[in-house]
Amino acid sequence: SPVDMNLFPGGFNNLSDEMLPLAIQAAMAAIEKYCADARNLLLIPENHSRNSFYLMNVLRLAGILRQTGLEVRLGSLNPEITQATPLELANGQSLLLEPLIRQENANGSARLGLADFDPCAILLNNDLSAGIPELLQGIDQQVLLPPLHAGWAVRRKSNHFAAFNQVVEDFAQLLHIDPWLINPYFGLCENVNFHERTGEQCMAEQVDLLLGRIRSKYKAYGISEEAFVIVKADAGTYGMGVMSVNDASQVKNLNRKQRNKMAVVKEGLEVSQVLLQEGVPTIEQLEGSSAEPVVYMIDRYVVGGFYRVHQSRSRQESLNAPGMHFVPLPFETSCILPDGKAPPEAAPNRFYAYGVVARLALLAASIELEQTEPGERPSPAQADA
Amino acid sequence: SPVDMNLFPGGFNNLSDEMLPLAIQAAMAAIEKYCADARNLLLIPENHSRNSFYLMNVLRLAGILRQTGLEVRLGSLNPEITQATPLELANGQSLLLEPLIRQENANGSARLGLADFDPCAILLNNDLSAGIPELLQGIDQQVLLPPLHAGWAVRRKSNHFAAFNQVVEDFAQLLHIDPWLINPYFGLCENVNFHERTGEQCMAEQVDLLLGRIRSKYKAYGISEEAFVIVKADAGTYGMGVMSVNDASQVKNLNRKQRNKMAVVKEGLEVSQVLLQEGVPTIEQLEGSSAEPVVYMIDRYVVGGFYRVHQSRSRQESLNAPGMHFVPLPFETSCILPDGKAPPEAAPNRFYAYGVVARLALLAASIELEQTEPGERPSPAQADA
Repeated sequence: SPVDMNLFPGGFNNLSDEMLPLAIQAAMAAIEKYCADARNLLLIPENHSRNSFYLMNVLRLAGILRQTGLEVRLGSLNPEITQATPLELANGQSLLLEPLIRQENANGSARLGLADFDPCAILLNNDLSAGIPELLQGIDQQVLLPPLHAGWAVRRKSNHFAAFNQVVEDFAQLLHIDPWLINPYFGLCENVNFHERTGEQCMAEQVDLLLGRIRSKYKAYGISEEAFVIVKADAGTYGMGVMSVNDASQVKNLNRKQRNKMAVVKEGLEVSQVLLQEGVPTIEQLEGSSAEPVVYMIDRYVVGGFYRVHQSRSRQESLNAPGMHFVPLPFETSCILPDGKAPPEAAPNRFYAYGVVARLALLAASIELEQTEPGERPSPAQADA
Repeated sequence: SPVDMNLFPGGFNNLSDEMLPLAIQAAMAAIEKYCADARNLLLIPENHSRNSFYLMNVLRLAGILRQTGLEVRLGSLNPEITQATPLELANGQSLLLEPLIRQENANGSARLGLADFDPCAILLNNDLSAGIPELLQGIDQQVLLPPLHAGWAVRRKSNHFAAFNQVVEDFAQLLHIDPWLINPYFGLCENVNFHERTGEQCMAEQVDLLLGRIRSKYKAYGISEEAFVIVKADAGTYGMGVMSVNDASQVKNLNRKQRNKMAVVKEGLEVSQVLLQEGVPTIEQLEGSSAEPVVYMIDRYVVGGFYRVHQSRSRQESLNAPGMHFVPLPFETSCILPDGKAPPEAAPNRFYAYGVVARLALLAASIELEQTEPGERPSPAQADA
């Protein structure tokens, strides 16, 4: 089951080299849809330019896009970048960050670019947790990927999983399977303030409800696992504001330190909505540690993936935490080469299934973004899957 | 320079396993263009069902297409296939050949399929050297790939290279390069009968003309090679009806055996048009033998390639001859991963260039098929590049 769907992937550097041709081909297919004669693409990375792992991701992503034949340059939202600024990377290569230049036209429209660089498409690898900067607003003649409301300033996990409910409902009917097999239960609490301890009752009730539903599924399938629930900020990312509980009382008796940890996410955003999601214990293990597969897609194509591994976390905890490391998926488990002659649980087939779930999640994300487009009537989150 | 462009590839089995994901992804992108809701694809292979190498190609091609999610079945043009016929392959797998069923509709249109199998698209891997069978004529509601006039019953190499002239002209202008670098000279003799020794004068004149032009290019670039010309049937394939000459007299003094060899090609077709093409000595060597790169594409994507190697042929002869063997290109030279930090002649860059030339050749093929579409005004071959 998918537990997260990131529209600003930060781990392209964790894909194996063997997957590069696939990524390039997918990017080629994608880019010709957006600007048939595109030559220039502007990539906007995160501002935390001192994280060398993240910079390796940007280098890899820019490299993939350049191999398609595009001219790719990096524009920074960071106001401190006032001139072209080279960043040296751990591997000896470097990235050039340039200040964004916004050009207002007489008719009220605006274009975004760099000095002597007018891009046709703008690829956001900045998740906009800090809000949508004015620089990016009202850009209507260039393709902005993903759209601004995909950023965490606007996006809510509950909307995504509500859309995923719809997608899985249809898919499960086609395949005659129980949708629960690929879709974890979830609930939502909308008025939470961890500092002021409001919303605890809602969270406790949701945890109770979810644990009951999970346990009855476990019983029906003869699964001897302990049910647990992941509590996480509805608008958070970076693995911040996440905890694992197996009893409703645990969300009511948080100590000050725990509450502080849950109260704020990236860029200091206050948490006010909380997603409570069925915990999915991972069956993947690597080097004796808990591991979870992370599948990468470009456009609608699965292009590879990697394991997120954490040596000191159990298979019932979020592995997205300091201390994690990443291991590229080997070619054999590239997510797009099922082996019809091997059993369903064989690695190529397991990973193919992960790839299928990733494609369903991407489909859900497109529905989610359509439903949450500013000006559109919002569809209420349907938490009762 | 490209010396051949095959629309009915017979060597998918020679691609390395590492290239499979790329082929599958390209096939996915392709198939959704032709029938958005396609589930059924009919693959029509060659009739020579006892060639185990060819059958491995069909198995691989069908496998790639099945991995995209299609239902793929094989329909045979061979009249001896009157019922579903399993063919055992060398590797223990098997293929099921089924008889084609043509359904005539009241309105004069017709559909092609198998028992209980109505395909949306029909992929021809049969080059129709023996002519266009009635079974395939007038199929107008199913996508036929490639179109019937791409078969050797209609297709002429000279039309292809005339279209390639146009494409390279534009491309060379964009890149400010001499088009000759990627486009070999060619000439055409239209009324040749090797048995009756007609057309020898034309061939000798063309060879003379071509050798002169090649030698002057060699001189301009300081190339110390001996110029040679490949003489081949304008409508032939399978490496039949091909010879290498380095003097005009050689096409006038063919002995009976040589003339018999040149006079007929696959399926016993009589040769009446002859293409005379600048010989391109290969610089590739493998295991001490002459080798030439063969690039494979699906839709508009390069998906890999292999070396054609011949131990007893020189780099000035056609390697497409009995005794050849095939070696998959290693991943590093996958034709789509140029290495900007390596010199132009480094393997990844050499093979990337081969991939670019293959893409130009495919573009030329699409122009060629447009220009030769039945009912369209044929464009005369422009042999003076």
